[in-house]
Parts: sequence; structure tokens; C-alpha cells
Amino acid sequence: MNLLLLETADFTAPDKVVLRDRRFTHMQAVHRVELGDSLRVGKVDGLMGRAQVTRLEDHEAELAVVLDQPPPAKLPLTLVLALPRPKMLRRVFQTIATMGVAKLVLVNSYRVEKSFWQTPFLEPAAIREQLILGLEQARDTQLPEVLIEKRFKPFVEDRLPAVSAGTLGLVGHPGDYPPCPRHPEQPVTLAIGPEGGWIPYEVDLLGLAGLQPVQLGERILRVETAVAVLLARLF
Amino acid sequence: MNLLLLETADFTAPDKVVLRDRRFTHMQAVHRVELGDSLRVGKVDGLMGRAQVTRLEDHEAELAVVLDQPPPAKLPLTLVLALPRPKMLRRVFQTIATMGVAKLVLVNSYRVEKSFWQTPFLEPAAIREQLILGLEQARDTQLPEVLIEKRFKPFVEDRLPAVSAGTLGLVGHPGDYPPCPRHPEQPVTLAIGPEGGWIPYEVDLLGLAGLQPVQLGERILRVETAVAVLLARLF
Repeated sequence: MNLLLLETADFTAPDKVVLRDRRFTHMQAVHRVELGDSLRVGKVDGLMGRAQVTRLEDHEAELAVVLDQPPPAKLPLTLVLALPRPKMLRRVFQTIATMGVAKLVLVNSYRVEKSFWQTPFLEPAAIREQLILGLEQARDTQLPEVLIEKRFKPFVEDRLPAVSAGTLGLVGHPGDYPPCPRHPEQPVTLAIGPEGGWIPYEVDLLGLAGLQPVQLGERILRVETAVAVLLARLF
Repeated sequence: MNLLLLETADFTAPDKVVLRDRRFTHMQAVHRVELGDSLRVGKVDGLMGRAQVTRLEDHEAELAVVLDQPPPAKLPLTLVLALPRPKMLRRVFQTIATMGVAKLVLVNSYRVEKSFWQTPFLEPAAIREQLILGLEQARDTQLPEVLIEKRFKPFVEDRLPAVSAGTLGLVGHPGDYPPCPRHPEQPVTLAIGPEGGWIPYEVDLLGLAGLQPVQLGERILRVETAVAVLLARLF
């Protein structure tokens, strides 16, 4: 946790919070804070700044908060991702929040196992928990937008063209395609497939929506690594 | 597992292997192989090719192997990494093997907790296990070289200059430094610090060994993500 993220409900006054939960435990166990210590804080979807510990008890702490700095800029990116397996999904939520993805769309694909859609990690509170962990890691306050599209074809045909309009549209796909461009300096819409990749029909449909295939070399990367590698190359 | 990696001990003839362990279970449970099926295989530190299932029993399979393709090229990189916490370490071994790092040096640093050096994940068999998983993911056969340097100063002063000579030497370090270069087209020696970063004394010493600080932007990345991001930017 490189930033203590504060929620609206934590505030007892405009410049004062009381913490009792995981964050209080973390302050004590990891940061070993004492009365008067100063910590980096941010308000979810708000500004960042510092907080001073003004009261420290066994079960809670009170902090005086000054929020005066903007969070880092988001990447100008919509990431369309075939739903990964649940364990990977949790880490992907953290990774995309840490790296500054503005918008994530989770879609179905022929090679996504149907059971993956049953995972409790897709519940809004579970998604938010992982995104918050990712923001705390990065020192960011702005939650990425996460959309869930369980049907591939209606999403790609009816809604993706409007998302990709005016952006560089790319599909990560192994094969005889151009390499993923480096630092293209324009907004990007990027689609990353499931383990085993998109099927040709899906690549064709993504192409009609404005996304052209690019490849990343011979090595096959886990989804989480592929996300980090593609974003590092693009931005 | 995108490649079934064969060990010397698996061979019962120059072109024949018998499998019984994790790989046999995986062939059955995930690939659901049947008699006559063909699989991608590679020999550890050797060639890649295909194998046909010539005998399939409850507890073992025999495969006829043809190895005729070279593995993908390694990255021209020595990665010097402050020892990560054990759970992260295992994933880092997989990631560096998947991404094609040729040589990894694990070093101590002021901010590495002493207890991390006690982890069983540093035992040679445990390291090899994770590297193999990473190679199977990537479709590569060549094990990265892994060196363990428990003392920072003697390594950086006495051995690192010879490693970094003739390469682009870089230290990932937050601060007012140039951004990490993109695709420099020369071999690289790259040092990545622990959680919390290198201390100034360490950055100075790495500088004397030929490694100059570069930064990666405002966001603080987990070690595993930082490794993937820096390699994607460099290669």
C-alpha cells in the first residue's frame, strides 16, 4: 500500500477521517505509525495529499487530511479483454488499476470457459476491492470503469465501433501480423484474447469494428503479463 | 502448458519418451490426449518439435518424438533483481523465463527483508520448477541462468562491471531521471530494486558499475509488473 485510499464514509468532517478496518491494521502492522506521523492519502475518485495521525487508539485512528494534488493521468485506453480464469481475473483487476487503464470491458469469447462467468470475483464489491488494491499500489485514486459484456457479437457489432472510433484499434493475436506499434501517441482501443487466443471469426468481427491484428512475437504470455507488456509498448 | 518439456531422463530411446508425472496428468486432464494424437514438445535446453502418443495407459504414456526446431531467441539481457518477497519470487521466476531473460542475478539490498533469504523457493529444485513452468507457457526450452548474490557490495563492485561492460546499463529508480529508453537495440544490464526502491548509496554504487538511473513514471508497480513493463519497453 503506497497510498492510503479514503472513502466518503470515512470522513467525520471535511478534513478529518476515522479508520478502523484493513487500512487501520495495515497502518499499524506495516507502517507502524505513531501519533503525529504523516501518511500519503488520497480520496477515491478525488485528490491526493497527506494525513497526520491526530488520535491513535487500540481499535481506531483519527487523521487530519489535506488533499491538494491531482492523481496521475489515466492511459487513453479502452481495454477489451476476454474473461480470464477467476484467479487470473483478480490479478488482472489489480494490474489494470495499477497501470492506469481508464476503461476495461470484459467480454465473452469462444475459448472462455462458461464456468468462468459464475465466479464471485465478478461481483461489483469484489471487483472494486481488487481495483482499490491496484490503485493503492500505484498511488492513484481514480477507479477504472469496468463493463461486463457476456455476449460477444452484440457488443462487438453494436457498441465497439463507437468505442474504437477515433482511436487506434488493435487486437493482440499471434500470427503473421505487424508487431504491436510502440508509443503511437493517440488513444487506443486494444482487445486481448483468452488463453488459446481468439478464433478467426472473432478476429474478423473485431476487424469490422475497427480493430486490426498485431502480434507480440513467438512467446506466449499469460494474460496478466500480456496486458502489462502491451500497455508498456503502447504508452 | 503450451509446450510439453522433456527431460533427458524421460528418454527411453533417442526418439522415444515415457511420461508418468505432472505432465502425464496434464496431458490427460487438460489436453485430453488420445492414442495417435500429436503434441508440441521440446527438450530442456534443446530443440523443439512434435511428439505422437504411441502408447497410452492408466499410469503412463509413450511418445515418439521429432525435435527439429530451434527455441526462440533469448533477450540480450542480464537482469539484476533485489530479492522479492517469496510469493512474488515464484511468479518472477515464471515471468522471466516466459519473457526470455537470459540471465537473472538475485541480489541483496538494504530494503530486502533478511527473512526473504530463508525461503525454500530459493532452493535449486524449486527455482527450476518455476522456470520450467515459465518456459512451458512461452514455448521455450532454454533455462535462464540464475545466480544468487547475497552480498550487494562485493557483487556490484567486483563482478557487475564485467557483466555491464559493452551493454546499456540501467537502474530502474523513481525520481528526476530520464525515462527508460525504448528499444535501444543493444544488450542491456538492468537492475530493479526491492519494494520501496534502492537506497541512494546503492544507486551510487550501481552507477560506478556502469548502470545509470532511469524512471518509469509516477505509478509504483509491483516487482513482477515492473519486470514485464521494463522488458517490454526495452525489447
